Amino acid sequence: MAAHAAAFAASPAQSGDDMVDLTKSHPFYGDAQQAGISTEPQRHSMFMTFDLTTAKVGDIQVLLALWSAAIAQMMQGATIGQVEPPQDSAVGLDTGEALNLGPASLTVTIGLGPKIFTDIYGLSHQRPPLLRELIALPSDSLVPGLTGGDLSVQACADDPQVAYHAVRDLARIAKSTGSAQTRWTVMGFGRASAGRGQQTPRNLLGFKDGTRNLKEDAEFEKFVWVKDGPAWQRYGSYQVVRKIQMHIENWDTDRVSDQNNVFGRHKVSGAPLTGKTEFDTPDFAKTDASGNTVILPTAHIALAAHENNNGIRILRRSYNYTDGLNQFGQLDAGLFFMSYQNDPAHFEALQTRLGASDALNEYIAHIGSGIFFAPPAPKQGEYIGQAIFS
Amino acid sequence: MAAHAAAFAASPAQSGDDMVDLTKSHPFYGDAQQAGISTEPQRHSMFMTFDLTTAKVGDIQVLLALWSAAIAQMMQGATIGQVEPPQDSAVGLDTGEALNLGPASLTVTIGLGPKIFTDIYGLSHQRPPLLRELIALPSDSLVPGLTGGDLSVQACADDPQVAYHAVRDLARIAKSTGSAQTRWTVMGFGRASAGRGQQTPRNLLGFKDGTRNLKEDAEFEKFVWVKDGPAWQRYGSYQVVRKIQMHIENWDTDRVSDQNNVFGRHKVSGAPLTGKTEFDTPDFAKTDASGNTVILPTAHIALAAHENNNGIRILRRSYNYTDGLNQFGQLDAGLFFMSYQNDPAHFEALQTRLGASDALNEYIAHIGSGIFFAPPAPKQGEYIGQAIFS
Repeated sequence: MAAHAAAFAASPAQSGDDMVDLTKSHPFYGDAQQAGISTEPQRHSMFMTFDLTTAKVGDIQVLLALWSAAIAQMMQGATIGQVEPPQDSAVGLDTGEALNLGPASLTVTIGLGPKIFTDIYGLSHQRPPLLRELIALPSDSLVPGLTGGDLSVQACADDPQVAYHAVRDLARIAKSTGSAQTRWTVMGFGRASAGRGQQTPRNLLGFKDGTRNLKEDAEFEKFVWVKDGPAWQRYGSYQVVRKIQMHIENWDTDRVSDQNNVFGRHKVSGAPLTGKTEFDTPDFAKTDASGNTVILPTAHIALAAHENNNGIRILRRSYNYTDGLNQFGQLDAGLFFMSYQNDPAHFEALQTRLGASDALNEYIAHIGSGIFFAPPAPKQGEYIGQAIFS
Repeated sequence: MAAHAAAFAASPAQSGDDMVDLTKSHPFYGDAQQAGISTEPQRHSMFMTFDLTTAKVGDIQVLLALWSAAIAQMMQGATIGQVEPPQDSAVGLDTGEALNLGPASLTVTIGLGPKIFTDIYGLSHQRPPLLRELIALPSDSLVPGLTGGDLSVQACADDPQVAYHAVRDLARIAKSTGSAQTRWTVMGFGRASAGRGQQTPRNLLGFKDGTRNLKEDAEFEKFVWVKDGPAWQRYGSYQVVRKIQMHIENWDTDRVSDQNNVFGRHKVSGAPLTGKTEFDTPDFAKTDASGNTVILPTAHIALAAHENNNGIRILRRSYNYTDGLNQFGQLDAGLFFMSYQNDPAHFEALQTRLGASDALNEYIAHIGSGIFFAPPAPKQGEYIGQAIFS
């Protein structure tokens, strides 16, 4: 006992990211992208998809307009209407659980699925040219109930109750219209991607995630935002989501030297195996005394690196999740992966490489998936996607 | 559309509880109660129970000793050992995902289930006199897989990843000993009980929860802490946990005037229906012009009030939870209720009244349950519950 206890080593907290200010807010309306994409990732997320249950295009317009008005209010920390109406016969317009919690940096980002841009709604001609179902990928273990959807709602906030309230009340509005039905949802805790000025967070494999993520405006311009096509598509982006289950109990039995080789980085520092500090550029050509590359060609950072993928980069905006325990009593958890890119083929190209040969695949399974087009932010007085319908 | 949008009303954030400092820590060792009971509730919780899989009392001692050493480290924001050992053949002692996140006010509170104090382990003579299985209660819809357990771990923190890491690494230690197996777990987001100096939070029914909760030392002395029996039981407490599913979509269709009657309070202000502000004392005798009491005798606060229960009070330390969507596509969420009291019969007395006639029962179901004895904190150099075994 004593020996075990004595082996415990202290690791004091760093000073960055230690204070959370729940009074901050982001604007919903704007002239370019929706909030929640280039926005520095908040601490919590709630993601939900919906199936359209209407064949009338006008119903989609009404739903998007109702959602837009509600989101604009909630992102300011306001309710979406009276919680306690004075009339005895009235139901509340807002469910109330986020009252007085503050905006908590809430962003709600809406995505439009492939079905919207079809002949059902007379909108085939408006389809963003690269929007389509994702191809089958080698890591797929997709569960139908965790896959697809015609609309996506990504709510992120520094208070989980604020994020939950946003999705709950948008689901309630959808239900009230009869135009859309909930499909699947994931709550995320602990951001697993870094934005500008943020410490790099860790995923549930214990590794820093997002060291090489996009952070600069120029990178967003090049890799994230759609820059051509009709005006209403510009500063839109293709949203890809993947629910990635991680077999963390198995992972925890692996030697850390093996884990480091799987990622190509050191677990604690995040430095590439060829470097000394987190942000050192990986040297994929560097060899050891035996002539083998120090970073294995199958390491996660080697497979995903833009140097090895014709310069392709995508924005990752992921969160850790847990589903409790599985049927075997093992911890059931993973990564709710979200990426934004100006071509979903970029995600597919990277994931095809990662899924086919990544040593990580022994420990993960892609169980959920979705693809959506996130249109630009609505201008003040308009609703999201309004120009699609004109 | 315009009319709907115009009806939206702003509700600016209050100034209290708006900043979260993730560098704060609580001590694990002490001369009285464990941390995590009278500690002001943190923002997140992770609760897990375990079944003992050993018949040897010594195995329980080893597990509690290993857990104690680990908890003491984690509550200081430290790892429980090296994340990245220098030896190529070594697994990490700590899984690493909370590295550098800070203590985040983490508390880990251990509970001991009824089975521990039996002849199996030669510990019948040490049984806390009031520890036994809970009686059947009128609101029970208990699922066996969400009920019971021989050990409980309640981790609470202001960062959910810190709470998750604590439970994960304690589960890993348990697995490594072969002495205990995970049983059930609930992650809580958003505290739903107020401690001293805290704003009263809201549950997912949108109502303030915990206005009349215990806050003063004298109240804890009278209602929470065990004050007699052997020294090792003093400043222990009986922990009752209930996973309470809430049918929030049905609730949201109810008139708020009805909801107010269900609780006996106003939804927004939290004031009793007989008062003007949250902390006004309810007047259960006050009648309206028709001669009916303003607060219905079946209202939640009437049924639960100490004035109507021979002075009985319990400490509530609950959290909101979500399980996503149910099989019907409805939001599946509720309250992870935790209470501490110096006699579990106090919980049973209150819940018998609430479960039999509370108008709230149309909207809730108790699906999980557990009872444990939380012994006092270990003294420095000892492990939790050590005196039980001497």
